[in-house]
Amino acid sequence: MTQPATVAVDVGGTKIRAGSVIDGVLAHVRSAPTPATAGARAVLDTIAEVAAAVIAESSGSRGAESLAESEWRIGIGAAGVIDPETCTVVSATDSLPGWAGTELASELSARTDLPVRAVNDVHAHALGEAVTGASRGARSSLLVAAGTGIGGGFITNGHLLTGRNSAAGHIGHVPSAAAARLDCPCGGTGHVEAIASGPAILNTYQRLVHGDDSPASAPTSAPNSRSGRDGTAPIPANTRELAAAASAGDALAVRAFETGARALGSALGGIVNVLSPEVIVVGGGLAEMDETWWTPLRAAFAAELIPAASGTPLVKAELGQDAALIGAASLWNGEHSQKKETH
Amino acid sequence: MTQPATVAVDVGGTKIRAGSVIDGVLAHVRSAPTPATAGARAVLDTIAEVAAAVIAESSGSRGAESLAESEWRIGIGAAGVIDPETCTVVSATDSLPGWAGTELASELSARTDLPVRAVNDVHAHALGEAVTGASRGARSSLLVAAGTGIGGGFITNGHLLTGRNSAAGHIGHVPSAAAARLDCPCGGTGHVEAIASGPAILNTYQRLVHGDDSPASAPTSAPNSRSGRDGTAPIPANTRELAAAASAGDALAVRAFETGARALGSALGGIVNVLSPEVIVVGGGLAEMDETWWTPLRAAFAAELIPAASGTPLVKAELGQDAALIGAASLWNGEHSQKKETH
Repeated sequence: MTQPATVAVDVGGTKIRAGSVIDGVLAHVRSAPTPATAGARAVLDTIAEVAAAVIAESSGSRGAESLAESEWRIGIGAAGVIDPETCTVVSATDSLPGWAGTELASELSARTDLPVRAVNDVHAHALGEAVTGASRGARSSLLVAAGTGIGGGFITNGHLLTGRNSAAGHIGHVPSAAAARLDCPCGGTGHVEAIASGPAILNTYQRLVHGDDSPASAPTSAPNSRSGRDGTAPIPANTRELAAAASAGDALAVRAFETGARALGSALGGIVNVLSPEVIVVGGGLAEMDETWWTPLRAAFAAELIPAASGTPLVKAELGQDAALIGAASLWNGEHSQKKETH
Repeated sequence: MTQPATVAVDVGGTKIRAGSVIDGVLAHVRSAPTPATAGARAVLDTIAEVAAAVIAESSGSRGAESLAESEWRIGIGAAGVIDPETCTVVSATDSLPGWAGTELASELSARTDLPVRAVNDVHAHALGEAVTGASRGARSSLLVAAGTGIGGGFITNGHLLTGRNSAAGHIGHVPSAAAARLDCPCGGTGHVEAIASGPAILNTYQRLVHGDDSPASAPTSAPNSRSGRDGTAPIPANTRELAAAASAGDALAVRAFETGARALGSALGGIVNVLSPEVIVVGGGLAEMDETWWTPLRAAFAAELIPAASGTPLVKAELGQDAALIGAASLWNGEHSQKKETH
């Protein structure tokens, strides 16, 4: 009797990515664009199609006994606030119209005849790094996903902390002095995401280019900050271009990343003083940056730690976009199938 | 066969308080001054003496079969960072010289012939409120102890979060814009404890009286802030006198408490966005304040919450100084005796 196989699916606002996880190994990865504007039903149909394709491809590559559908389960990591007990989308952003309220388990079981478990995609990312990634073996870990937003997932003794309303892990929404008076995507103001996310760093850069030395720009910001711009280079239009400009020596681009990294590092230091995880794992697009981002992040992080927490390792995530798939599949592990319900 | 009885001991820098917990009921409470300056050995001797007195008194009030010492256990909530697995003092402040490194279990078992379990006093406070206090029945809760320091304890599914180096729960050491550049007792700067603790609020008041409108004083602070002082009243020398002055209408005293309460409320809102507990319980000396402190605390707290966390209840602790005793005794509950080891 072979070990049951899982189809893991990562449902994002722009892409649906799936793969098979058999005996803990991810394979047969496929992806499709998320038909976000077409509504939740279209997104569910696409998830079912991609999952079926993964099963067909992987089943074909195994012994005949594996073809029995009863062997397969589906594990989902999805954008939005997901209640892992009811597998329902509690709330979602405008990137997925009509997504809020979707009953993932019943809708997908109806389309695939397979049992379904689901969790928020960042929570799945945290589980993945804890199962086979940078925090494997740690008794507790905090995963930080730093990109277009700042999210996270805290795991202790194999338990994913989901919390009241499944809202736990919103580490981008702690107060940050560097973000004073800046609007946050959550509707509040002054949260670290408003100065440390990719889009926020681009906004800081724009303010610096226009000579606006608001409290949100780096304390070291100087009146002649414009001089940092190379007048001949095009102005970066997105975070990726801004990262390239920083690598090319654009002083204001460097300062924008430093400002965001310092704010995030300081916030993470404070969170470590509260949670005291054995390790902090940093993933997401910003984690792909060079020392321009990592050095101020580590320095600001270390500066906030109380003596009892000093030396807490801050490391880079290891699994990239596969983390959410491995984490979603882990919802079916004997270990996590009970613990996913942990509050 | 009666249920085993526990002697619960709360070891603070100035007072050692103990009582019996039998069938979940606290009784025969006794206390003695902590011989702090005499060193750890003297403190351990006093703990053993008070515990023996509690056992003698409570045993005398029960059936003869209860006299068997084998029935009794000791549960300790002690100042300092305590490792609940080894029952060792990991670190401590100057208020208890030589306390760091003390092996509570072996030292006290040697003095009493009783089994010993120990945890940090604020963690014990959190356990107590969760067992029979304001957070009883909640799947997760955060206890905030706001007084001479700002500490806390997070409990989820009956598990006390102790963390790496048993350092979890230091909620007073998250960054606060209102505390910018203020020294924190932890050795860092800008932590919320540096503006929100009782001593910090007194410091803010002193700055206001001297007309120092530093960033740490209330944003609403005006140049003519001195006018708020009633020239005939004595200048408050401690937090208790300052609270009385605030109740008597001293404008600067009110502003000092508002400044600390706003900073703490904001920090707690950010922490709730990360932990999403079902309830936040606020205890400690500051929780005894009137609406002068509670109103700005609640307002700043609510302002930070993300939509998914809005409505999280922020309530006052119910058990007062008995919480640490009931929590320390709970280390011996079948439920907590395993879970105390949770990381």
